[in-house]
Amino acid sequence: MTVIASTETSQSKADAGSVSPATPPVVGFATSPDRYRHCRLEVDGEVATVTLLVDEHGGLVPGYELKMNSYDLGVDIELYDLVQRLRFEHPEVKAVVMTGGLDRMFCAGANIRMLAQSTHAWKVNFCKFTNETRNGIEDATANSGQTWIAALNGTAAGGGYELALACDQIILVNDGSSAVSLPEVPLLGVLPGTGGLTRVVDKRHVRKDRADLFATKSEGYRGGTAVEWGLVDATVSRNAWDEEIGRRARQAAASSKRPSGAEGVRLTPLDRKDEGDTIAYPYVTAKIDRSGHRVEITVAAPGEAPPADAEAVLAQGVDYWPLAVTRALDDLILHLRTNETELGIWVLRAVGDAERVMAYDAQLRELAGDWFVNEVRHYYKRTLKRLDVTSRSLIAVIEPGTAFAGLLLELALACDRQYMLEGVYEDRDDGAVPATIRLSESTGGDFPMGNGLSRLESRFWGNEDDLAAALARTGEPLDAAAAVELGLVTLALDDIDFEDELRIVLEERASLSPDALTGMEANHRFVGPESMESKIFGRLTAWQNWIFIRPNASGPDGALRRYGTGRKGDYDLKRV
Amino acid sequence: MTVIASTETSQSKADAGSVSPATPPVVGFATSPDRYRHCRLEVDGEVATVTLLVDEHGGLVPGYELKMNSYDLGVDIELYDLVQRLRFEHPEVKAVVMTGGLDRMFCAGANIRMLAQSTHAWKVNFCKFTNETRNGIEDATANSGQTWIAALNGTAAGGGYELALACDQIILVNDGSSAVSLPEVPLLGVLPGTGGLTRVVDKRHVRKDRADLFATKSEGYRGGTAVEWGLVDATVSRNAWDEEIGRRARQAAASSKRPSGAEGVRLTPLDRKDEGDTIAYPYVTAKIDRSGHRVEITVAAPGEAPPADAEAVLAQGVDYWPLAVTRALDDLILHLRTNETELGIWVLRAVGDAERVMAYDAQLRELAGDWFVNEVRHYYKRTLKRLDVTSRSLIAVIEPGTAFAGLLLELALACDRQYMLEGVYEDRDDGAVPATIRLSESTGGDFPMGNGLSRLESRFWGNEDDLAAALARTGEPLDAAAAVELGLVTLALDDIDFEDELRIVLEERASLSPDALTGMEANHRFVGPESMESKIFGRLTAWQNWIFIRPNASGPDGALRRYGTGRKGDYDLKRV
Repeated sequence: MTVIASTETSQSKADAGSVSPATPPVVGFATSPDRYRHCRLEVDGEVATVTLLVDEHGGLVPGYELKMNSYDLGVDIELYDLVQRLRFEHPEVKAVVMTGGLDRMFCAGANIRMLAQSTHAWKVNFCKFTNETRNGIEDATANSGQTWIAALNGTAAGGGYELALACDQIILVNDGSSAVSLPEVPLLGVLPGTGGLTRVVDKRHVRKDRADLFATKSEGYRGGTAVEWGLVDATVSRNAWDEEIGRRARQAAASSKRPSGAEGVRLTPLDRKDEGDTIAYPYVTAKIDRSGHRVEITVAAPGEAPPADAEAVLAQGVDYWPLAVTRALDDLILHLRTNETELGIWVLRAVGDAERVMAYDAQLRELAGDWFVNEVRHYYKRTLKRLDVTSRSLIAVIEPGTAFAGLLLELALACDRQYMLEGVYEDRDDGAVPATIRLSESTGGDFPMGNGLSRLESRFWGNEDDLAAALARTGEPLDAAAAVELGLVTLALDDIDFEDELRIVLEERASLSPDALTGMEANHRFVGPESMESKIFGRLTAWQNWIFIRPNASGPDGALRRYGTGRKGDYDLKRV
Repeated sequence: MTVIASTETSQSKADAGSVSPATPPVVGFATSPDRYRHCRLEVDGEVATVTLLVDEHGGLVPGYELKMNSYDLGVDIELYDLVQRLRFEHPEVKAVVMTGGLDRMFCAGANIRMLAQSTHAWKVNFCKFTNETRNGIEDATANSGQTWIAALNGTAAGGGYELALACDQIILVNDGSSAVSLPEVPLLGVLPGTGGLTRVVDKRHVRKDRADLFATKSEGYRGGTAVEWGLVDATVSRNAWDEEIGRRARQAAASSKRPSGAEGVRLTPLDRKDEGDTIAYPYVTAKIDRSGHRVEITVAAPGEAPPADAEAVLAQGVDYWPLAVTRALDDLILHLRTNETELGIWVLRAVGDAERVMAYDAQLRELAGDWFVNEVRHYYKRTLKRLDVTSRSLIAVIEPGTAFAGLLLELALACDRQYMLEGVYEDRDDGAVPATIRLSESTGGDFPMGNGLSRLESRFWGNEDDLAAALARTGEPLDAAAAVELGLVTLALDDIDFEDELRIVLEERASLSPDALTGMEANHRFVGPESMESKIFGRLTAWQNWIFIRPNASGPDGALRRYGTGRKGDYDLKRV
């Protein structure tokens, strides 16, 4: 399978004529500023400006034009790339102004024709990715000293306003016409499902009856009301615009803890090889078993000890093992989620020298104050969060030679189940050492889930004693007996039973309803408290998924399909 | 429209032959122990025993047999009635043992053929009601000193186990075969959506990888494992069964604060009149406007001052105004939700003497320690919670003569919007006094929502100053100007604009997609934190609704439709 970068995909596919929505293209997530077609990034000292100027003819899939700065997955891939590069390549940037390149329209949101022609799976996956990017913007503001400011120099509608909601501040131009709006419910019969409903009330604290008015008023609200209700922070005339936006950006930058004078790390193209059903990166390999509907993902421990200090870490840049692993995992997760929907089971392994993993783990903590190491930590955290919301069954397999320790143990803990071999494979592991796993200080909470809990806290939710007992063994190699005793693995079996059991488990899993599994896993993984983030991926997304496939939205007479025809949706008025 | 009680419906409909799932019967929610066909209630001093013995031929709708103590809405209506009567009619009951009347099967859960033949709306509404009843069981345990114990004298499968999960303790017979199980995912391709997934991890604190094993293993787990994992509290042999269940019931009763020697209040049949499109109870009236797709619900203030003391309150029994209002509202909400799905908008008004409402409100607080008043308070709370999860647009209208004060103000605050007339209707209200609303001490949190917040806290979520400012005006009559200023109403207009505005609002609302409104309202109403309860109605329900309409479950080859044919579901294996 040839992976095509997003922008190339669109061109080649456009040349090839219309593509049925039932066979979406293979999507690549790798891009770079020199290939952007929709976004422009300008850096001026501490302040970067991101300008959204979508190429109408640059859709990822044929069949729609990206008018009025509306977006599709291709646009969002650029936006994601840009958010990442700002964090790694631009340590000097302390504030990011996001604005639009059109005259009176900042962004019209997700392209409606694109939504109308897409399969359900495509829509859902697209929304998940856009949600993750918007969470990433908030993460940059919260954890990276890079404050995003939405400078709405025109109307922000639907997903356009949802994009602004991810920013720390929202400034709307006061020109007598520009507004913010969420027209999804009145015009399309779907939800503002990319965080919109949730962020309006949970982040912006808009009173809920006003949120109701807002989300049912297709034209939205302009300056005065928008400010009074909290939908935006300020409204500014065109005359004062540049000065006010600049002032706010400088003010945000002034409170940033990001270093001055540091050099960035260039996110060079990933070293990824696709050969048959194997995808290989330097530290991550994926082997696809199509008949088994699964993929075996193996993460390798580092080959060498960590570099001596922050300077040496920076010098390694993208080759710094934790970053290399994270980038590969991130790309792989996105690829598999988007392009391999029939691989319902991901089997995760970690192999190699666990001691070295622990050494890197310690370094990530020790140098946490360094801007680059901080970025690596948070990027790894975000990538684990992608795994948490991935609608695939995740199974960790722990065998001799495992490197599930410290930060890599998070991968196992993110799984729905953990299977551990007790002892060795007698018939082939002559001289092998039985597997052990190891908690590190980071297991306590350096890489929290979207609901704010560590994966260990989630595992032992409501069982404080079990949590404490596990944490008390931090650093110790824990063999199968200890891991079972502490509740860190689901099952440990000796080699006579292990392979059979695992085979049966995987076969059984592949025989279950993918939809039911998705719902079940989403409920089990997020035990305990909820955050705005987990509410967006949980409640809001689940409702949106439901609405997406209702005839009132996606049926032949549904609002989504009829949009632009001049005819409104023909609704079945029965409430469910 | 003639309302038929549940058991009568089933008989008359059964006589009439098969009913298309597209035209479900008109369901009545009123029943009483002498009419039960599925449940038996025995009271022995402080301990009541509820025995589930479902009449196979007593289905509410033709087309299925309720074998193995499986249930449908009719069974659940009896269960709900029974939970209510235990609280009001049996102050002496301090522990409730729930058990089964069959040999080796406690309860097989919701009847699968019933689910397979039901419309989507019917399934969703059925699940909502069963969820509410299970929450009611927990509420009895938590707030009424009536501890429920599930005495599983046979297998509890699916909804049967979910029913047990609502109890404070779960005891499973150790007979070598009885088990607890959640077979929905492996057998039916749907979720254990009546709280099962959520309560296993969030209430029982079962480790999530074990919860995953459990929810994919159709036969479930028996004694030892079930206890070790926390799925049940104990497993007891048949020999020791009666003694151990009795011991636990007496122990639970001993810690109850329920009074001894008190006399119960009989829940006599409701005085409900259905005439044309009007439904009238003594203090609640509903007028249906079918062409407008709405119903106008009016709640009347009491006609007299509250009775003098707890004794006098008790003497009034079901005629005690707060209880009479609550029972009527409860019945009306259930009726409209189930039988009037095309009435998408409920317009709520309260009329009468607000002073008297405030007097009753004060009394409910003052006598909160009295067992009967306590029951009334919690019943009103539960009824308001029904409103919160009702998938209808709720609009409060506040006009001269309004009685939206104290506990009745909760009804307005539960609404998605509040419209208030400023001044009077000049052309018809000669001499009328402009409307005022009033907060009372109870507004501060006596009737919390499912997420634990008061409706006022929800309204001002994230705006502590606004909350404090409103609470500071507790007791004061607040006119339209003050109500707007304090943010207690959405909009106040004078009579020239009010009626037009309201008409437009209602017409517009009726023109929107019912599905999108349902999702939007569910997201807006539950701002802020989540509880187990709100997670069940939010995330779990939303996922289940999605799964219910997916072809993998409900399509002709879906698991739900194929169940019992010996053929497994034929799944589209693409993950969404």
